[in-house]
Amino acid sequence: MRARDFGLVCGTLPTGPLNAITDVAGVTVGHRTRMEGDVRTGFTAVLPHGDDLFREKLPAAVEVINGFGKSAGLIQVEELGQLETPILLGNTLSVGTGFEALVRRALAANPDIGRETGTVNPVVMECNDGWLSDIRALSLTVEDAYAALDAAAGGAVTEGAVGAGTGMSAFGFKGGIGTASRLLVLDGRNYTLGVLVLANFGRAGDLVLPDGRRPEVPKLRRQDFGQPDAPERGSVIIVLATDIPLESRQLKRIARRCGAGLAKLGAFWGNGSGDIALAFSTASRIRHHEAADLVPRVVLNENRIDLPFRAAADATQEAVLNALLAAPRMLGRDGHMRPSLADVLGEPGQ
Amino acid sequence: MRARDFGLVCGTLPTGPLNAITDVAGVTVGHRTRMEGDVRTGFTAVLPHGDDLFREKLPAAVEVINGFGKSAGLIQVEELGQLETPILLGNTLSVGTGFEALVRRALAANPDIGRETGTVNPVVMECNDGWLSDIRALSLTVEDAYAALDAAAGGAVTEGAVGAGTGMSAFGFKGGIGTASRLLVLDGRNYTLGVLVLANFGRAGDLVLPDGRRPEVPKLRRQDFGQPDAPERGSVIIVLATDIPLESRQLKRIARRCGAGLAKLGAFWGNGSGDIALAFSTASRIRHHEAADLVPRVVLNENRIDLPFRAAADATQEAVLNALLAAPRMLGRDGHMRPSLADVLGEPGQ
Amino acid sequence: MRARDFGLVCGTLPTGPLNAITDVAGVTVGHRTRMEGDVRTGFTAVLPHGDDLFREKLPAAVEVINGFGKSAGLIQVEELGQLETPILLGNTLSVGTGFEALVRRALAANPDIGRETGTVNPVVMECNDGWLSDIRALSLTVEDAYAALDAAAGGAVTEGAVGAGTGMSAFGFKGGIGTASRLLVLDGRNYTLGVLVLANFGRAGDLVLPDGRRPEVPKLRRQDFGQPDAPERGSVIIVLATDIPLESRQLKRIARRCGAGLAKLGAFWGNGSGDIALAFSTASRIRHHEAADLVPRVVLNENRIDLPFRAAADATQEAVLNALLAAPRMLGRDGHMRPSLADVLGEPGQ
Amino acid sequence: MRARDFGLVCGTLPTGPLNAITDVAGVTVGHRTRMEGDVRTGFTAVLPHGDDLFREKLPAAVEVINGFGKSAGLIQVEELGQLETPILLGNTLSVGTGFEALVRRALAANPDIGRETGTVNPVVMECNDGWLSDIRALSLTVEDAYAALDAAAGGAVTEGAVGAGTGMSAFGFKGGIGTASRLLVLDGRNYTLGVLVLANFGRAGDLVLPDGRRPEVPKLRRQDFGQPDAPERGSVIIVLATDIPLESRQLKRIARRCGAGLAKLGAFWGNGSGDIALAFSTASRIRHHEAADLVPRVVLNENRIDLPFRAAADATQEAVLNALLAAPRMLGRDGHMRPSLADVLGEPGQ
Repeated sequence: MRARDFGLVCGTLPTGPLNAITDVAGVTVGHRTRMEGDVRTGFTAVLPHGDDLFREKLPAAVEVINGFGKSAGLIQVEELGQLETPILLGNTLSVGTGFEALVRRALAANPDIGRETGTVNPVVMECNDGWLSDIRALSLTVEDAYAALDAAAGGAVTEGAVGAGTGMSAFGFKGGIGTASRLLVLDGRNYTLGVLVLANFGRAGDLVLPDGRRPEVPKLRRQDFGQPDAPERGSVIIVLATDIPLESRQLKRIARRCGAGLAKLGAFWGNGSGDIALAFSTASRIRHHEAADLVPRVVLNENRIDLPFRAAADATQEAVLNALLAAPRMLGRDGHMRPSLADVLGEPGQ
Repeated sequence: MRARDFGLVCGTLPTGPLNAITDVAGVTVGHRTRMEGDVRTGFTAVLPHGDDLFREKLPAAVEVINGFGKSAGLIQVEELGQLETPILLGNTLSVGTGFEALVRRALAANPDIGRETGTVNPVVMECNDGWLSDIRALSLTVEDAYAALDAAAGGAVTEGAVGAGTGMSAFGFKGGIGTASRLLVLDGRNYTLGVLVLANFGRAGDLVLPDGRRPEVPKLRRQDFGQPDAPERGSVIIVLATDIPLESRQLKRIARRCGAGLAKLGAFWGNGSGDIALAFSTASRIRHHEAADLVPRVVLNENRIDLPFRAAADATQEAVLNALLAAPRMLGRDGHMRPSLADVLGEPGQ
Repeated sequence: MRARDFGLVCGTLPTGPLNAITDVAGVTVGHRTRMEGDVRTGFTAVLPHGDDLFREKLPAAVEVINGFGKSAGLIQVEELGQLETPILLGNTLSVGTGFEALVRRALAANPDIGRETGTVNPVVMECNDGWLSDIRALSLTVEDAYAALDAAAGGAVTEGAVGAGTGMSAFGFKGGIGTASRLLVLDGRNYTLGVLVLANFGRAGDLVLPDGRRPEVPKLRRQDFGQPDAPERGSVIIVLATDIPLESRQLKRIARRCGAGLAKLGAFWGNGSGDIALAFSTASRIRHHEAADLVPRVVLNENRIDLPFRAAADATQEAVLNALLAAPRMLGRDGHMRPSLADVLGEPGQ
Repeated sequence: MRARDFGLVCGTLPTGPLNAITDVAGVTVGHRTRMEGDVRTGFTAVLPHGDDLFREKLPAAVEVINGFGKSAGLIQVEELGQLETPILLGNTLSVGTGFEALVRRALAANPDIGRETGTVNPVVMECNDGWLSDIRALSLTVEDAYAALDAAAGGAVTEGAVGAGTGMSAFGFKGGIGTASRLLVLDGRNYTLGVLVLANFGRAGDLVLPDGRRPEVPKLRRQDFGQPDAPERGSVIIVLATDIPLESRQLKRIARRCGAGLAKLGAFWGNGSGDIALAFSTASRIRHHEAADLVPRVVLNENRIDLPFRAAADATQEAVLNALLAAPRMLGRDGHMRPSLADVLGEPGQ
């Protein structure tokens, strides 16, 4: 069940066929879910293309909406405007594990790393699932990260309590993984912009639906998010993919608009929330061993950038709703629970 | 007529007595309005305190939400975290005039500037009122800027089509000057956060009211904002004042949340919109001729910053609505018109 | 007389034919000098190409090395990565005047500004010449700015106490305008990177020459820079032009290396010094009325960027030395004097 | 043997008693060195104080001079201006391991992390020692990180090829760990600013000594740094500690001046070099469980900041020289060698 099944639509742009980040050609997503005992966690991998990213990098940019977060690899993306590994999403304390997994995979595929050429910049992003999951158990392993990477596939993306989203919460409800996409026409050709979110942000009571409704969070047991002064300890990670030709500066501007999508949902990017958007374009590749000194590129006419701006805000807003609506009620560690937004909204289509 | 007269309330925090930036003790606002022939423009001045700002500076910060703007003085505010002149708001092409006015006033008041001490950093911010006003006439003068500065007073702030807001538009409606405030309690004491906006942003059809309604823009003559592909050429300037003790880094984080307030209204910070928030704290002063090497300060416990975050987002959202609702329908240059949001919403209180 | 006449060479890259910013094809420079009574000031204009910059913009970037400065237009350059007016350099209190001059020229050349299209972003940068000149007189006029713009020409650039450099000081010596250039080969073709500086920075006694010498500042009358605790009130503006195809992010990285050139001279970017570098590339133009949604570009392979990095640092260092060596000793307001570095170094070539 | 033993002095400010970062009261440094087979690597730990940093955080800031680096934790330091773990320095591919070690230590010391309170932000920084060491072996373990943390002690700091510096290179010479400090007087009291560098940057032939000499790199076997077009794959990490009361914004400005110290040595912050400075102040602590909403602080009068600016630049410059001079010639993997600068300079004191 997704937002549109409940009549919730964000903006007026058309969606891609799957309304998912995988509508961007070549992008694949994989999950590894760990649910056992008090553990509710996992990894989610986004692969921007099917070839080796170290040898065939992509233009990329990062926008730190609120920097209360522990992600790895963002400094280099900011400086060089390039992405050179798959993107791993996990829980806050698993960033080191994700870093090691991406390093080992890059070393295995590229025998010249650390020998004839330089090192590699793994990108790992995270949210804190400690309310539902025993995050102190440090249960995620390098093998779990490999499993998420190996599971990456095109087609429909599993949403909700899956992969890195397994133990996440948002606006007092069960959160997790969501995705959405939008279609744009430029110079008479179709282009796609897709978003995948790891939604773990927003105070209970702040959620506003696109139709103006403000769903109440049912009173379950021990919901600290419902206490008026409980600080938000959430976060939200947004991965934005597009096949529009863009330079890094343009991608950064577009990534910033993901923050507008969050605000439309009622968020104000709370102090304790690490809200970060990473954007990449698949339209051209940056070869690690580029022979030419000067390389041709195509970029978007800046006067047309309102179109991807709007797509980024709308798709982010809808992806978060998809995450919430896909996730059933969950019982986690120490009797902590999160209700499902879908249960509150009732029968879809009504 | 203000937003609350129409039943529109943003957030749950209480307002100050005037629901205005002047609720922050010592802050005054002055307008100079120029309406003649095809000219619909003016200056608005915000004076952070009643003493000489060059000698008694304030902690300040700037957040560039979208940098398509020509404001002066922001680079130094960013570096030093200090404000040392009143803030002037005008139209885009009047920034040089505003700069000169603030320089002349500072020179007159401080004979040591350019002699025994350094120079002064005037802060002038702007929006483009060229849809309703003949901005090419360059009609604003240094004397107009003086008039706005000299008119500064406490108490209720005139809103709508006044001062720098005279010729502004927002979401296809007549825009202009608006203000709002929120009260916070810290360590058992009351504090105030106030916002003044110069609202000239937002595409027609994008406006969302806090109750979820999306008011339609009546079809008037030659409304380019209503054309689907007309790029936004607006902007919005936000001045945020507070008596909460804050360091510059904290003020910058708070100023960023003004952007969330804009997004809640339906904006996505369009390409052509110069969206800038400037924040200052009146809680302590930075003496130009400080004798001590080390100076005491009080700062906010970062764990409490969600409170001013929320206040900044809510007050910004409401200040924009106040600007729109205070501004009557206006006929400008070349037959250009902007309808009034108040006319569309009908009788207040209904 | 220039640095190389004194045997002073910065780095190993070859210079352009003039060792000047005008070695970059199409770049022209004009000065307006005002020396009368206690006034020692002026404007310097850099025109990136000979056509209308508003209609034919250039990729550009700004690097704020230290933001104690009052320059106009930098926020929009940072956001859009575009330059759309000539660059004016003046004294600190003349920024408003320069802004107005660039606005008036753009309005005259573009009747659509403020009517069918948006406004224009004037770029004005400044240093404080108040030690030698009566900066409080506000003597620079719009006509002075026009005169600098109209004087713009290719060929050798007059250096030293000329234009905006008339009243400037650096390292306790007379400073002013200097320029230098470097040649680079990319894909077998020649490219040029040129720099023009307005040098008004550096504490007396801190200057280090490329050969390791540390020239002493002769004791003249009332040299406040020579007092051990006198704060620096200088600044340095660097304009960097190149015909290498570069995107804005790359231009920003290159502009940052101008700061390395300053540090090699002994500077540490003092608190009171507004040290700003603005860089543009003439390799491609960004049309204001671009019809296509997607436009082709050529960019530098990032792996080759060390070459322009080195050129930027070396040319900046040499341009400052050229400024100092071209400027004769000057007597300014109130008996203030600045000695000439050339007088201290003695006969060139020895 | 240190720089001053060779008559090399940077600037005129006095040093602390040890001329080391440990002159700042409470700061301790520990090394773990791994030299076996083709491995030349290690961890270095800097502990800002002897108590639990998660409960007693410090004001901090980061300056990314050039962001070609993989460090962890910097995004949150930038946002919050706080440091809450010890600082670990290692090799590029060991960042994940260092992250995990700091997480495990923080969990062990703070049972509330991930339960009643949020998570922790580990700070790990790195350079690439792959020229001398088999970095692909991923030989550093969590236990190695613990060993560095447990070895932390005050007093003189071992410099050169030790800890994280074991396999590093700089300017074609053997590089590694170096340190230096400066004393400042504020309001009549003594303060200390200390720097520790992990020096692995600079092209062979670019090094300039403070006396103007440019030492040649002896021709050894297979020195790729000596090839004219070999890209730099180095980096330099600078940790700056001080007991001066400073807010985060001021720490960031001071950290930026470390880059001036690098430039004075001949560096231009090459593309492939991850040059990052992290600064903290021990003057006050930020309690994780602070009860008060508003907290008193002391900050530096901004007009006095040139003094720590100069100290940061000078101490960085000297710390790098100390690193080079302490490191003997080293034979690494695959017959790669780095000569010692001390061998080239000859007998100290001459």
